[in-house]
Amino acid sequence: MRTGVSVEEARAIVLEAASVLAAERVSCEAALGRVLAEPVHAARTLPPAACSAMDGYAVRSADLAGAAAAAGASLTVAFEVAAGGRGARALRAGEAARIFTGAPIPEGADAVVMQEDAEALDGAVRIRGPVRAGEHVRPEGEDVRSGDLVMAPGCLLGPSQIGMLAALGRSGVAVHRRPGVAILSGGDELVEPDQPTEGGRIVSSNSYALAAQCREAGAEPSLLGIARDRPEDLEGLLRAGLHADVLVSSAGVSVGDHDYVRPVLEKLGCRIAFWGVRMKPGYPLVFGRFEGERGPLVFGLPGNPVSAMVTFEQFVRPALRKLAGRRAWFRPTVEATLGEALRKSPGRTHFVRVELAGREGALRATPTGNQSSGVLRSMVLAQGLLVFPAEASELAAGARVRVQVIDPEFFAAEQPD
Amino acid sequence: MRTGVSVEEARAIVLEAASVLAAERVSCEAALGRVLAEPVHAARTLPPAACSAMDGYAVRSADLAGAAAAAGASLTVAFEVAAGGRGARALRAGEAARIFTGAPIPEGADAVVMQEDAEALDGAVRIRGPVRAGEHVRPEGEDVRSGDLVMAPGCLLGPSQIGMLAALGRSGVAVHRRPGVAILSGGDELVEPDQPTEGGRIVSSNSYALAAQCREAGAEPSLLGIARDRPEDLEGLLRAGLHADVLVSSAGVSVGDHDYVRPVLEKLGCRIAFWGVRMKPGYPLVFGRFEGERGPLVFGLPGNPVSAMVTFEQFVRPALRKLAGRRAWFRPTVEATLGEALRKSPGRTHFVRVELAGREGALRATPTGNQSSGVLRSMVLAQGLLVFPAEASELAAGARVRVQVIDPEFFAAEQPD
Repeated sequence: MRTGVSVEEARAIVLEAASVLAAERVSCEAALGRVLAEPVHAARTLPPAACSAMDGYAVRSADLAGAAAAAGASLTVAFEVAAGGRGARALRAGEAARIFTGAPIPEGADAVVMQEDAEALDGAVRIRGPVRAGEHVRPEGEDVRSGDLVMAPGCLLGPSQIGMLAALGRSGVAVHRRPGVAILSGGDELVEPDQPTEGGRIVSSNSYALAAQCREAGAEPSLLGIARDRPEDLEGLLRAGLHADVLVSSAGVSVGDHDYVRPVLEKLGCRIAFWGVRMKPGYPLVFGRFEGERGPLVFGLPGNPVSAMVTFEQFVRPALRKLAGRRAWFRPTVEATLGEALRKSPGRTHFVRVELAGREGALRATPTGNQSSGVLRSMVLAQGLLVFPAEASELAAGARVRVQVIDPEFFAAEQPD
Repeated sequence: MRTGVSVEEARAIVLEAASVLAAERVSCEAALGRVLAEPVHAARTLPPAACSAMDGYAVRSADLAGAAAAAGASLTVAFEVAAGGRGARALRAGEAARIFTGAPIPEGADAVVMQEDAEALDGAVRIRGPVRAGEHVRPEGEDVRSGDLVMAPGCLLGPSQIGMLAALGRSGVAVHRRPGVAILSGGDELVEPDQPTEGGRIVSSNSYALAAQCREAGAEPSLLGIARDRPEDLEGLLRAGLHADVLVSSAGVSVGDHDYVRPVLEKLGCRIAFWGVRMKPGYPLVFGRFEGERGPLVFGLPGNPVSAMVTFEQFVRPALRKLAGRRAWFRPTVEATLGEALRKSPGRTHFVRVELAGREGALRATPTGNQSSGVLRSMVLAQGLLVFPAEASELAAGARVRVQVIDPEFFAAEQPD
């Protein structure tokens, strides 16, 4: 077990221990936000035959060339191509066919005239030419050809990808499993939010914040409940979490004492990789794993609300994203100008809760108030975590700083374009 | 009814018609991503009494001042403050109390010494001073005071806000309803993904892409199914969608013909606000609403897969975000350098599917291939939609362009900090 590792060392140890989860088959509707675990080859050609890109009239472009182009030509509307191509026959010279978007082009026709460019007459249509061969026609296979590799493993499935899977006739798809995260809190003083807090009791709020962080990271949290300050109780809840991919405990009062948690974890077969990370908030972080890649990754997070959330951000969230098969594991960072001077002793990386104001290229980062690790309010106000490097002791007002953006709405725009 | 409106006009008409939805009460656990519809005042003070910020020893700083500071002082460990403060009594001169993070500071004590800075002896502890009064003590009300306004209406509820609600003992919270979106497709040629596509049938893939777009926008989609090409059938499905906040239809073949949809919508009491937007892809977009603010906003989207998705992006998504109470309704945009020249006729705004490469300040936007509105593959590859302004006819290679970022992973980082 290593103690007092740097943020960078801790991150490397955690991410080295996290391996992408196995695949499972889900319906395409349930695949939003999941990562593809198989190559998707087209099982069909799309469109399967040349079809109309517009509502209008299928024509023979030759009928609308030369003299007809200038004066316009009247074509007999010989038939209508119904859905799926019903009603179609070969188009003869001087004929047009009523056609709608997506319907197959009848034999003989080679272009479509938009209905807005045509004048419907009784049984006929008047069109001013010329019309280019191929105009408003989607050729067979314009989108994909049977056998094409359409999506590669690792592709994140968004709306377009789900639409494509559906268009290819896929009802299911292989994706990496979502990480299951078992969350427990420890401490005799903890109660659920709707229970009374007389006698120094406090609400087990970390579980709720951590569960929300899991959901936001694409994982599936389950709350194991509150372990009381007895080793048997802690052991019982930890055992209940061994089925999960990740086990996150957030300390209450005395469970913050690592001498208490460690023997229980070791008894269960968990090997502690490190205890303590040189950061603030969040020094007393424990990370362990089971031998032979069975059993969950175990994070013993500190009990202070902000420490729990910030250590989750730095270590648990990237691990969850790696487990889920994502390519980019980290928050976006932006460069900003610091609004007020910051000082600290060298040795630990500080993550300073900041608001961000201004626009790209001219962002200003301002601390959101009291940075005590127990002050959740300054976290509630924070859009980002300013990284105050371990060895630095001062950042002057006006200094250029890096900020991890934790507000998912930060980049959304209040005005279009 | 207006026809052929500009993108800007259409956006203004749609957003004017969308009003933020009423509030509902949900559990805090279900509130992630929802928008607060009430002010949240603290019903309690946090922490309720001065408490320890560390695992260690509660001390009287006076005992560790002066001569004791240099040499270090041995204090008797008189008692342990258990969870919730049990076991505590007033601390006398020369005494220390074992204490853990979050436990109340005993009367008489005014500082906490971290256990890492103390040497535990048999029944005593050796501490090198001096210790500042207040050190590692979280004062009563450091986080919030009873009665404080902690969150204002309009606040988006993320993990920190949910943790705060739990800490304040709230089990439920008033948030704006999520928009319910009823989605239907129309066309005799449409089949579900697992049905055969012989005879020119095509999969109703738009419904799946649109449902995923709704989910990504924080709305709750429901699929009404496929309306066949009979007015009674279309009317029946549209009626089934009248309970929703938003009704989205995506045309199949003949339903693209607005003369077919319009009478049915009007019969149901829907007033068409506009038909046709000067954009590509996606001209044939219908938007309607019901009189007196009853009934859903109605979007008749074009049938081509990319047209349906792009019109959803430009009009339905901002409306859904406004309905849900969000402050920023639009996608982030970035400035990029265009990788290849683009040309078009003036008159319509083009939304060009592009990949984005490079880093902030030096992004390069390159079209993802065939921009036909039927080619979903170039949408699958797209991270953004380049806005090619309506009146422009050429964008030179190397031009600076605005790109709407549609890939939610675009800003995520592959490296930390």
